[in-house]
Amino acid sequence: MSASLSQIRIVLVETSHPGNIGSAARAMKTMGINSLYLVSPLIPPNDHTRALASGAADLIAQAVMVDRLEDAIADCSLVVGCSARSRSISWPTYSPRVLAEKVRVLPGTEQVAVVFGQERSGLTNEQLDLCQYLVNIPANPEYSSLNLAAAVQLICYEFRQTLLAEGQDDIEDLNEPLATQDDMARFYQHLWSALIELGFLKPENPRQLKRRLTRLFNRFQLTKSETNLLRGMLSGVEKQADDRRNSDSV
Amino acid sequence: MSASLSQIRIVLVETSHPGNIGSAARAMKTMGINSLYLVSPLIPPNDHTRALASGAADLIAQAVMVDRLEDAIADCSLVVGCSARSRSISWPTYSPRVLAEKVRVLPGTEQVAVVFGQERSGLTNEQLDLCQYLVNIPANPEYSSLNLAAAVQLICYEFRQTLLAEGQDDIEDLNEPLATQDDMARFYQHLWSALIELGFLKPENPRQLKRRLTRLFNRFQLTKSETNLLRGMLSGVEKQADDRRNSDSV
Repeated sequence: MSASLSQIRIVLVETSHPGNIGSAARAMKTMGINSLYLVSPLIPPNDHTRALASGAADLIAQAVMVDRLEDAIADCSLVVGCSARSRSISWPTYSPRVLAEKVRVLPGTEQVAVVFGQERSGLTNEQLDLCQYLVNIPANPEYSSLNLAAAVQLICYEFRQTLLAEGQDDIEDLNEPLATQDDMARFYQHLWSALIELGFLKPENPRQLKRRLTRLFNRFQLTKSETNLLRGMLSGVEKQADDRRNSDSV
Repeated sequence: MSASLSQIRIVLVETSHPGNIGSAARAMKTMGINSLYLVSPLIPPNDHTRALASGAADLIAQAVMVDRLEDAIADCSLVVGCSARSRSISWPTYSPRVLAEKVRVLPGTEQVAVVFGQERSGLTNEQLDLCQYLVNIPANPEYSSLNLAAAVQLICYEFRQTLLAEGQDDIEDLNEPLATQDDMARFYQHLWSALIELGFLKPENPRQLKRRLTRLFNRFQLTKSETNLLRGMLSGVEKQADDRRNSDSV
C-alpha cells in the first residue's frame, strides 16, 4: 500500500499576488493534486486569480482559507517547507524527488502539507519551525529564481511521477498511525513544562532551546504511540518535581 | 563523457503571447539552459517579455530569431517535439525523464532542440514532420493543460536532474557530524539510569520499554550535538532526583 495524491495539500502562506494563487492552482491540477489551503493571502482570490487558474478554478472555489499556518496543518502528520535558500542553520533538506519517495511509503491515512511562503521572502523562521523537513528544488546556482507557480508545478510533478509509479516495493512502513500536528503541539506543551520544572528551560529566555528541540523532534516523524510514551516519561519528571516540593514543604 | 546543458536549445514556434516567451526564458535559466530560438513569434519580444523574464532577460537579448523552424534546427542532430496530445498517428514518444536519459548519452558535440508549438494548437503536422521524437509530460488526464512556461520548466528540470548527476544525491545533509554508535551507547546508558531514577524503568523488567525506546531513537539518526543536548536534559533529571533525596534525608 502506498500514499495517493489525494493525501497531499499545497499550503500558500501570505501570498502577495492573487494571480499567483491562480497559476499555482492550475499547476496543481495538471498533476492531479487538488487540495489548496490559503493562509492569510494579502489579497483574497479574485477574478485575476480565476483567470490564471483557467480550468482549475474549482480548486480556488474549494480552497480552505485560514488565518494561521497552524490551522492549515493541524491534521497533517508530515509538514514540509519549500525553501530556495540554503540556510546557515542545518535542517534536513530533500530534493522534490526524494521527498516524493518519502511520501510514497506513508500509510494511506496520513495527510501531507507542502508549505510555500510569501513570494519574495519565503518562509519566516517561525513558519519553518512548524515544518519537519525542507524541500529544495535543485536549480541553477547563478539564477535560482523560480516563481511560485513553477515551484508548485515541479513539486507536484514529482509527486505524480513517484506516487503513480507502479511496481515499486515499499521501503519503510511503520504500520502505526503517525502523530498529527495537534499531537505534536500537546507533546511540546508537555515537554516545555517538564523542562521548566527541571530548571533546564528558563521561562524568561526559552527561544533558542525550544527551537533546537522543536527541530529535533519535528525531524523524527513520531508515531502517536511514541508521543504517548515520551509524554509518560515527562509525567514522571513532573511527578518527581511534585514529590520534591511536597517533601520540601514537610 | 556525457552531454551538457549547453548542447540543448529551446525552440518556441509562432508563440502568440510575448509574455510567455519571457516566462519560458525564466524557466530555462533557472535550470541552466540558456539557448533560446524564436520562430516567427506573433509579436516580437517586448517590454512585457522582459518583465516576465525577470533575471533571465539576457536570454531574450541573445535569442536567435528565425522565420522557419528548419532554420532553428539545421545544426541539430536530435529534434524533439513537445506534444500534449496523444495523436492517432504513431510516433516515438518519451517522458521528459526518458528523453533526458537519451540526451545524456549523446556525444558532447551534438546539438539538441526541443520544440514547442503555438500555445493553443501545438505543433502542426508539418512541424512534427521535422521532429524525430515526441516528448509528452505525464499529466492529469482530466486536466492536462500546462501552460507553455510550465512545460518548458518541467522539461528543463528533467534535463538538469539527469545531466548534472549531483542534483540527485543531495538526499539529506544536516551539515553536522552524526552520532557514532559509541555516542549512542553512552546516550542510552544515561537514558536508562535517568529513567530508573524516575521510577519509569523497572530495573527488574526493563526489556520491553528499553526496546521501544531504542527503536525510537535509533530511527532518528541523531547528530552528536543532539545527543549532548538530550544528555544535558537527562542530567537535569538526575540532579532533581538527587535534590529530592537530599531533602528527604534532612
